[in-house]
Amino acid sequence: MALISIIKDFRPKIDYYLISKANELTPTLKHKIKEPVGGFKLKERYSQEKNDIELESLSKLSIGKGENLCLDFGEHLVGYPTFELSFSGSHPDAPAYIKLKFAENFKELSENSSEYNGWLSSSWIQEEYVHVDIIPSRLVLHRRFAFRYVKITMLDTSPKYKLIINHAECRTESSADWHRVKMPEIEDKMLSDIYNVSLKTLANCMQEVMEDGPKRDRRLWVGDMRLQALTNYISFRNNNLVKRCLYIFGGSRFPDGRVSANAFVKPNIEADDTYLFDYAQMYVACLEEYLEETGDDEALKDLSPIAFEQIEYGLSHISNGLPDDEIVKATFIDWNEKFDKSACALAVMIYSLDYGISLAHRAGDEKRAEKYTEVQKHLRAKARELFWDNDKKVFVSGGQAVQATQIWMVLAEVITGKEAAELMRKVPELGKEVSMDTPYIHHYCVMAMIKAGLKDEATEYIKWFWGGMIKAGADTFWECWDGKNEDVSPYGGSMLNSYCHAWSCTPAYIIKKYLIQN
Amino acid sequence: MALISIIKDFRPKIDYYLISKANELTPTLKHKIKEPVGGFKLKERYSQEKNDIELESLSKLSIGKGENLCLDFGEHLVGYPTFELSFSGSHPDAPAYIKLKFAENFKELSENSSEYNGWLSSSWIQEEYVHVDIIPSRLVLHRRFAFRYVKITMLDTSPKYKLIINHAECRTESSADWHRVKMPEIEDKMLSDIYNVSLKTLANCMQEVMEDGPKRDRRLWVGDMRLQALTNYISFRNNNLVKRCLYIFGGSRFPDGRVSANAFVKPNIEADDTYLFDYAQMYVACLEEYLEETGDDEALKDLSPIAFEQIEYGLSHISNGLPDDEIVKATFIDWNEKFDKSACALAVMIYSLDYGISLAHRAGDEKRAEKYTEVQKHLRAKARELFWDNDKKVFVSGGQAVQATQIWMVLAEVITGKEAAELMRKVPELGKEVSMDTPYIHHYCVMAMIKAGLKDEATEYIKWFWGGMIKAGADTFWECWDGKNEDVSPYGGSMLNSYCHAWSCTPAYIIKKYLIQN
Repeated sequence: MALISIIKDFRPKIDYYLISKANELTPTLKHKIKEPVGGFKLKERYSQEKNDIELESLSKLSIGKGENLCLDFGEHLVGYPTFELSFSGSHPDAPAYIKLKFAENFKELSENSSEYNGWLSSSWIQEEYVHVDIIPSRLVLHRRFAFRYVKITMLDTSPKYKLIINHAECRTESSADWHRVKMPEIEDKMLSDIYNVSLKTLANCMQEVMEDGPKRDRRLWVGDMRLQALTNYISFRNNNLVKRCLYIFGGSRFPDGRVSANAFVKPNIEADDTYLFDYAQMYVACLEEYLEETGDDEALKDLSPIAFEQIEYGLSHISNGLPDDEIVKATFIDWNEKFDKSACALAVMIYSLDYGISLAHRAGDEKRAEKYTEVQKHLRAKARELFWDNDKKVFVSGGQAVQATQIWMVLAEVITGKEAAELMRKVPELGKEVSMDTPYIHHYCVMAMIKAGLKDEATEYIKWFWGGMIKAGADTFWECWDGKNEDVSPYGGSMLNSYCHAWSCTPAYIIKKYLIQN
Repeated sequence: MALISIIKDFRPKIDYYLISKANELTPTLKHKIKEPVGGFKLKERYSQEKNDIELESLSKLSIGKGENLCLDFGEHLVGYPTFELSFSGSHPDAPAYIKLKFAENFKELSENSSEYNGWLSSSWIQEEYVHVDIIPSRLVLHRRFAFRYVKITMLDTSPKYKLIINHAECRTESSADWHRVKMPEIEDKMLSDIYNVSLKTLANCMQEVMEDGPKRDRRLWVGDMRLQALTNYISFRNNNLVKRCLYIFGGSRFPDGRVSANAFVKPNIEADDTYLFDYAQMYVACLEEYLEETGDDEALKDLSPIAFEQIEYGLSHISNGLPDDEIVKATFIDWNEKFDKSACALAVMIYSLDYGISLAHRAGDEKRAEKYTEVQKHLRAKARELFWDNDKKVFVSGGQAVQATQIWMVLAEVITGKEAAELMRKVPELGKEVSMDTPYIHHYCVMAMIKAGLKDEATEYIKWFWGGMIKAGADTFWECWDGKNEDVSPYGGSMLNSYCHAWSCTPAYIIKKYLIQN
């Protein structure tokens, strides 16, 4: 997730009690040392044509001015790379000036960063210009990179020497503990692969917080975090990390109490000045799911009032079943922005009330549970009344019958049973006009299928969508995926796309919880 | 000094006893904290037009994408810069990608490094591309820079924030101790300024070795080092640093015993594969002068055999007064290469024998002293016979009567007394055809004037040449200077010129030793 909102002189409300609990929960990171499994030279500066080099030859190869050497670490890594540098020829009499380009995806290696002109900052492009003054020496990079490949280009040396990469390694970093994972037996090979790649995606996003992506934005977003938490419960079970994220979002909020869409952790915990209505509602779901998983009374006491605040805020912006402009405009749902989100905003509110009701029961606040149940019932009726087109048998919002609207109406149980199944079967054909752009909405699409009883279809859908990425070479799931367009990007240029992205990690959760017997 | 020679599979001869003594003599560096005295913005990317900014406003200024801020530290510094970074706007949601350009000279700030195509490596250009992931934070650069100005360009930020440089400082580094300097009283203002700038030049080149330049090449060259040593004796008197350099050159030499023109210190002491005949002879002069200054018996015992080896090598390449091609080609004298250096090579040999004779006496080797005295007498006669044009009253080598030849013949005392004075008075007019390009030969020109008794002329010459640099804004003396051409460079582009260069530091020595009464 990445989105830019700017509120002048934004000063988040800070609760130091919650912040200090979040800080106490900072995980110890686990490390592994990984080495390249092969290498190649790219023939031209910005081409994908390459000459493969055998592993044993890598440390014998010398790189002169203008030449490059690419190392392939064989899998997606998150960590700190180190290079042992040596030389051929005379003693180096001038610094080596090298460019290092780190790439999660092979395609990134040949991209020319000076051509990027999307709306996210090019400062996310993982490339570094480094002067090495002393050779032989050890080049230690002090930034963390997310990559499988690294391209080392010799910008300048002197005529007296060429550079040799004697050895390269990456000290990986993650707060996921693979020893805690119990892998289920999955007969279907593709489904099994998807399961593994899901967990790897999650592991590489699990750092000191649940990051949305280790390449970019490297911070926690509520909507992504909720999906990570769900997948975490069936795998790494680092529940304290989920708790930490919940306390971070609780500890620094909008001045009026709203949960921010994302938060910074360094140098201090601080909410971003971005509010997304649907993301804030996911805080309610995420807290309730965490409590269901852990029975953590401390978190219930500390955080349930914050969850209720989010619901109250949402309800105060819905009148007679119609969400107002303020929350509709703040509703994300998917990167595809070309549709009316009123119906979705309402559906998200109804969906959130499900969790609000459970939370109220859990907190012993029966009055609140009762109120929310009433409101939910009313809103469900209103949703059907306002958005259901009984002729076409689809939900219509602002004149459009888009996929996302159907999905969220099913999730909100505005429509159920056979009707829901029929509707979900129609969803694929609705995509012609307004496509679904992110694995985030594809996740909810699969969840809606399951809610509608379409388990076989859900399985096929996962194999088609996430399996498509694996067929295209993914060993972690990507932020964006469209089998028909490899350059798809919400940012005006795929250079900043993240190829290991939290909101794509859910298939393992869905498979384990809903699709296989264990 | 900078020169490129390549000898395939060069393996220097290492004397670990001398190397370990050199290592023991590694000086403790002294540090000061320096802050900017002002700042400005360059109006265009590669223009010298600027908007001045008051000191107090610097830390309030925010720098957006594409903008720059230049800090002026008010004087030439060598050290490690640190920047305290802050922001205006929303919390930074993407790294700051900044370019730092360090400049000794204002002109360098507006140079476009991609246009450099000289023969020295562009890796010497002092610019860094840096990603800052966390803001507010402290950006500490781990490379040493030589600079007065730093230009900070914001390559990319996000629309959410701009960068603020709250504070900047440089931790300077030098092994020169200013407390040991006794400044003489000099009435003449320009001469006094020249004296001060000389010492500052030397101090900024005095690091763990006598560097030729703190920007480039950052290592010791014999010819430069001898001049530094002389100036050091009348100022900082860090004689152990001279000793260390002598042991470095002694400890790692050409396999046949020749002293290399320059040596590396990191990661280990190692001679470069470059031999310059005149530079190697300066090892003899430098050792003898060091022993004269210190009476260091250990160095006499350890190093005088090496000095004698240099003389013997030279003598073995001179037959009947004619130096052979091997040493003539290896004779530097000056960057101007367009002249026949036979006469200079011979003169250097004769000059070196002066020091060889003193060294032999000092070592109690009277037989050697006697032999060298005989040889010197013979070579002086030969020099006169072979190169003196009695009609034109100048020395001619290869048909040319260039300045450098006259200078070295006077220094070698091939010509003395009134004849020498007459000759040195002719030197300026000889420059029309073959100019003198470096302060290194200008130094020897002044020394020849003094030898010829022309002290007033020498004073005026210093004021004209080194004073010219001061008038052009130097607060340390430059590697190259030509009042008529500010782009003069031996490297095919002035971008790599060094503006604090050891071989330019000698006026203080000359003034104190020869031109004023103290």
